[in-house]
Amino acid sequence: MSQTIKQIESIKEFGGFLNRYTHDSEVCNCQMTFSVYLPPQTETQAVPALYWLSGLTCTDDNVRVKAGAQRYAAEHGIALIMPDTSPRGEQVPDEEARYDLGKGAGFYVNATQAPWGKHYQMYDYVTTELPALIEANLPVIAGLKSISGHSMGGHGALICALKNPQAFQSVSAFSPICHPMNCGWGQGCFSAYLGADENTWEQYDAVKLIEAGANCSGILIDQGTADEFLTEGQLHPESLQQACERAGIPLQLRLQDGYDHSYHFIASFIGEHIAYHSKALKQKTA
Amino acid sequence: MSQTIKQIESIKEFGGFLNRYTHDSEVCNCQMTFSVYLPPQTETQAVPALYWLSGLTCTDDNVRVKAGAQRYAAEHGIALIMPDTSPRGEQVPDEEARYDLGKGAGFYVNATQAPWGKHYQMYDYVTTELPALIEANLPVIAGLKSISGHSMGGHGALICALKNPQAFQSVSAFSPICHPMNCGWGQGCFSAYLGADENTWEQYDAVKLIEAGANCSGILIDQGTADEFLTEGQLHPESLQQACERAGIPLQLRLQDGYDHSYHFIASFIGEHIAYHSKALKQKTA
Repeated sequence: MSQTIKQIESIKEFGGFLNRYTHDSEVCNCQMTFSVYLPPQTETQAVPALYWLSGLTCTDDNVRVKAGAQRYAAEHGIALIMPDTSPRGEQVPDEEARYDLGKGAGFYVNATQAPWGKHYQMYDYVTTELPALIEANLPVIAGLKSISGHSMGGHGALICALKNPQAFQSVSAFSPICHPMNCGWGQGCFSAYLGADENTWEQYDAVKLIEAGANCSGILIDQGTADEFLTEGQLHPESLQQACERAGIPLQLRLQDGYDHSYHFIASFIGEHIAYHSKALKQKTA
Repeated sequence: MSQTIKQIESIKEFGGFLNRYTHDSEVCNCQMTFSVYLPPQTETQAVPALYWLSGLTCTDDNVRVKAGAQRYAAEHGIALIMPDTSPRGEQVPDEEARYDLGKGAGFYVNATQAPWGKHYQMYDYVTTELPALIEANLPVIAGLKSISGHSMGGHGALICALKNPQAFQSVSAFSPICHPMNCGWGQGCFSAYLGADENTWEQYDAVKLIEAGANCSGILIDQGTADEFLTEGQLHPESLQQACERAGIPLQLRLQDGYDHSYHFIASFIGEHIAYHSKALKQKTA
């Protein structure tokens, strides 16, 4: 596996550096771009990492501009790892008329169906290839990481943690797609990327994973009550809540009154999420 | 003067509301859009206001998405008032090929020259019409306000405070254009909006205003040392420093090592600016 990354941008922020990199991804078969915020503590030491998976239509840029997360990452001494949401490039298949399939909508699965399978391997990308690259090249503590995300990326964070309970110290999500097999967004992507056999979908559905025995030490979720996609039936936190109750997984599902689906909602609570992950990451090192 | 505003958007953030409004501006002769963040304290009381003037190419949207200011406004109980940077609309003259003249580049002056004079009255807009509208319609304490801004908006904040020392309790700026008569951006806009007679420019140049006797109780400025526009000679904080020294105006000019001109720089220090303004605003009410 190629372990070379190329730094293409560096901006000082909160005493640390917000950097952007490109690399040739072997699993996605294309050049990928990602951003990393290195807090000031990395001048003298390696730090834990928090992976942030973004939602539909996003690149690595949205969270770094809109969430206000860097302030808290600097306070807690945590690196933020911000991957893209899909493979990119002219050779990568897309559905240009749709925002919820193809580029910007990788859904954090390994696609098996043509024409998607050659590039849309985002599950392997965010759980294996990218962490190996990060740990080989940047001042993070190998193996000490947590994961969070928003909407489609909240789904991604949940399945990555549930499928790899040893790899991530903690998991949280904002407005996650909890049960993609049971919503329009998830059904559209899963049928395209994974094919018609719904049995193959269950490995990427948080509710189904928990029902099949996946476990983790706890989950923190913030969900706005004025979220249009909650009303539309895309998110289904109640299904996750039921699955967690049956499985005995401690779920903090916080319904935040009057908040919507936007980054303004994320900004309002990202500090509490980073504090939550910081506590879990520091318990591991203590 | 029409005192009607129309709310077109409301997003909950940090317990308060980020609202957007339109209104028919009499001084700018067009419909204008502005944003206001109302902190949670406004549920039960009126609060002081901080006006934020944005830089070249911006609308009201940039600061509300990128600066991370709402968190601190909520903490301190201050409303953020975020106007646009120029008049807008099809009937408003523009230089479409230029980012630094016309729409997005009002420079906070009252234009006297054709074709600009009919609409480009941003000085009167931000110092008179907009505050009257805000105070008539929103839960802010009449007359209790401070001002800040970035780049072209830093220039705007400085001249608004220097020309109206009683109207603003405090003034700060990020990377301000301190001496527009002496830089390309300022000369381009002033010659277009105000004409060839440079004597008319001096009323909108912070350095010239101080040299002519304008005063204020103090100025806080953050300036990144890696700011490309500092190197390019657009900003000239040293001229402002010399003018303030001669006039006895307390200037805190903080050269922030390695920071650039972007909102990532603003985000890093906006909390300190809001704390600075909060202290001045609360001294006034105490």
